[in-house]
Amino acid sequence: MSADHPFDAAIALSAVGEGVFDGATHAGYANMVGPFGGITASTLLHAAWLHPQRLGEPLALTVNFAGPVVEGPFRVTARALRTNRSTQHWHIELEQGGELAASASAVFGQRRDTWSATEIAPPLHGPGEQVPVKGLSPRVVWPQRYEMQFVKGGWPDFANPQDAPADSDSELWIRDSPPRPLDALALAAICDAFYPRIFRRRQRFTPAGTVTLSTYFHADAALLAAQGTRAVLGRARAQHFGGGYFDQTAEIWGDGGRLLAVSHQLVYFKD
Amino acid sequence: MSADHPFDAAIALSAVGEGVFDGATHAGYANMVGPFGGITASTLLHAAWLHPQRLGEPLALTVNFAGPVVEGPFRVTARALRTNRSTQHWHIELEQGGELAASASAVFGQRRDTWSATEIAPPLHGPGEQVPVKGLSPRVVWPQRYEMQFVKGGWPDFANPQDAPADSDSELWIRDSPPRPLDALALAAICDAFYPRIFRRRQRFTPAGTVTLSTYFHADAALLAAQGTRAVLGRARAQHFGGGYFDQTAEIWGDGGRLLAVSHQLVYFKD
Repeated sequence: MSADHPFDAAIALSAVGEGVFDGATHAGYANMVGPFGGITASTLLHAAWLHPQRLGEPLALTVNFAGPVVEGPFRVTARALRTNRSTQHWHIELEQGGELAASASAVFGQRRDTWSATEIAPPLHGPGEQVPVKGLSPRVVWPQRYEMQFVKGGWPDFANPQDAPADSDSELWIRDSPPRPLDALALAAICDAFYPRIFRRRQRFTPAGTVTLSTYFHADAALLAAQGTRAVLGRARAQHFGGGYFDQTAEIWGDGGRLLAVSHQLVYFKD
Repeated sequence: MSADHPFDAAIALSAVGEGVFDGATHAGYANMVGPFGGITASTLLHAAWLHPQRLGEPLALTVNFAGPVVEGPFRVTARALRTNRSTQHWHIELEQGGELAASASAVFGQRRDTWSATEIAPPLHGPGEQVPVKGLSPRVVWPQRYEMQFVKGGWPDFANPQDAPADSDSELWIRDSPPRPLDALALAAICDAFYPRIFRRRQRFTPAGTVTLSTYFHADAALLAAQGTRAVLGRARAQHFGGGYFDQTAEIWGDGGRLLAVSHQLVYFKD
């Protein structure tokens, strides 16, 4: 970890008390309104990660985006709700101006050597191509913090929409820009780096924002470290749209077709 | 809702203060250790549901199973973290003997009439067959609280294991027993009614317990009410096993191939 990297600068927290941390938004990860959700997710995970009582490594993270995070400082509090022999449960809150903007639960724990199997298959490992981001507000800076090479389902061009596809699948090679060694913090953000699936399905700009995001980490720290700065292969797709909400699900694959994480989210949209 | 139904008796809560409720485990939903996780999930959701400040209907629920719930009374506290124009975020805790046993986040909100589409296909609508539960401890009572007609992947018979299948898929028709009109509370429990996928993959008893469970509700109250007491079609499968944990994902389909909910969980296992 290096404070020189924009990712590490963005998730940086200063301890100001037992489980209380101060941080601030980073202009390099700005989204339409407030910061990229993935960087907020990593920041909340980081608070538990930095806590002196933290045991083990991240197994699961759920982040609830309760309200807009605005540009400027914020406070994060992390509290261990329960520590067991092999797992530890955390509750984390991010406040700005005394109002809660995001909350999270995180499970840390020890992994053991067990039988293993993967039932889902990795996407086709074709080469990707860089697809320019078009038609989004110039305020949306965060895609510049990633190298994204799309195999399928690249950023739609809202000015020149394609025929709306029957599925919302995207597959892409992705890594931090500039490259940064992979760890669970970076992976937590990458899990949210898929643009809203409704952009692809409808081929037009639609206001949308993640309501809640859950990530399960299948890779341990050693496997993530072994991935180094090489790009991972991500796949995302929606399952159902309706009533002003949709869910999308993502997989992140590492070298040798190893499943590093799966992630699910419920997204608000307006049409 | 009728307090005469075992489901309603099991999730019953008495308000003892602002957002503070007393409840107790129900012998009819006993699992190997403590109650069936689905009934705990519904009980936590019920606390927010009953809160006088609650607005709208459930959109998402994440439950973290932090420690065993033991037979007897418990206390549930529900706190609205933030209320917006269209969504409301809750934090809920279940304690026994002063120690946290489970926590949850819930998002309630208003649905609006929007464009809708479902990208995943429902399972084959074949008839199901009742498959007896064998080889589990007689303490495991909760499966008797459901009518389960398996189309595929019924309860394994640990004494007469099949060849271990290459996938962990189960598909089944399921409803409360005795039948009870469907609502989000019942649906939250049904989302956890799929036995641990490792039972199917390995065809042998394996100690396993849900660590964290996230459900996204795609059906509104009217659609759930229209389903009435008719069985829903559920599908569950695992994605990855390893390091002492696996994740499994579930879909619940109603009449006419309407997707009612999707649910994901991370499960601890020991081998």
